Parts: sequence; structure tokens; C-alpha cells
Amino acid sequence: MQHTSLTGVRAYRDQGFHKYLVHESENFKILNFNFRAGQELPIHSHDLDGELSILVLDGRGEFLGEGGTVLPAETGDVLISEIREPHGVRAITDMSVLVTIAPPI
Amino acid sequence: MQHTSLTGVRAYRDQGFHKYLVHESENFKILNFNFRAGQELPIHSHDLDGELSILVLDGRGEFLGEGGTVLPAETGDVLISEIREPHGVRAITDMSVLVTIAPPI
Repeated sequence: MQHTSLTGVRAYRDQGFHKYLVHESENFKILNFNFRAGQELPIHSHDLDGELSILVLDGRGEFLGEGGTVLPAETGDVLISEIREPHGVRAITDMSVLVTIAPPI
Repeated sequence: MQHTSLTGVRAYRDQGFHKYLVHESENFKILNFNFRAGQELPIHSHDLDGELSILVLDGRGEFLGEGGTVLPAETGDVLISEIREPHGVRAITDMSVLVTIAPPI
């Protein structure tokens, strides 16, 4: 068993978001992204099978999707997307999210 | 893309915890468990390949492991376990957790 305190590893960068690898295995990859207000993970996609979840741990922002889609990203909101669907995140306040990718890429 | 507000679907049961299926696919299964203070998901395991993560969304409790192992389960803590390793959760306060199982069982 692996135990991680996400509040314990939280950090920010002034130039771009902070990324922390929580866990990587053959089953899934789990990452913690921390954004300063205004920072974003730009819309992107990969031509691979699989899905990802993006859970808002703290703060608020917007989930970004294809064709200008914008969905609320409040604390406790979760977005599930195919890896090959365009997806992104924009922070309105300082914001911490947990991304789980299965199978891992 | 699927968007879910976990605070929006939060519910409790007086007899045992409340379980909400957020998502199920060939890649992973995502469940939200809500516990009243004192409720627990007893230690269990399945003889199957794969892993799971248990993230504390709100409240606090304890992660339970093999041989009486007890680890803190504060908001923002995440436990990663093999599906075949004994694992469980006990709520000290009302507590909401997100469980991701990959591959799904």
C-alpha cells in the first residue's frame, strides 16, 4: 500500500503549473497538478485508447473540451474523458486537481 | 466527456455507507462512498490483478490494511493498494471518498 498526503506535496510554480507524479504502474497513472489562478493545462489529446478522470481537489476553474466547450470545475467536480478527446483545465482561483489515466500513458 | 458534481450526488445512509457509481468502463470503475462518522468499509480483498486508489474528498478517518495496519485518511490523502491486498476505510467524522479501480472489477 502507498499512502500520499496531497496537501503535503502541494506546490506551485509561477511559470506554468506544478506537476507531481503520485503513482505509476501498469494499471494507472495518477498525477497531481497545481495551478495558480489564471494558469491552464491547454486543450490537448493523444491518439490512444483509454480514459482519464480529472478531479478538483481544491479551488475552482473550468474544464475545457472540444469546440470551445467549457464546463464548471468546482471543488468535488470530476470530468471523465477519453484520452483521444480534446480536454484541458483552466484555473480561476489557485486550483489543485488529481488526474488518473487508465491505462497509463 | 462526462461531468459529475460529487457534492451534488452526496448522500448518506444510517444503515451502512452510501455508494454511488460515478463511471464504469473497460478502463476503470469510479465510485463515491459516503460514510457517517463511525461507519466503515471493512477490510477485504479480491484475488484479481489490478489496483485501486482511495482518495479522501471530505472529512477524516483511517485507512485499514493487513495485520491491523492503520494509516491516516485526512482530506486530500490517497491510498493506493493492489486489489488482492487487504484494504478498508473507517470514518471518524462524516467522510466522503472516491475509489478508482483499474482494471474495473
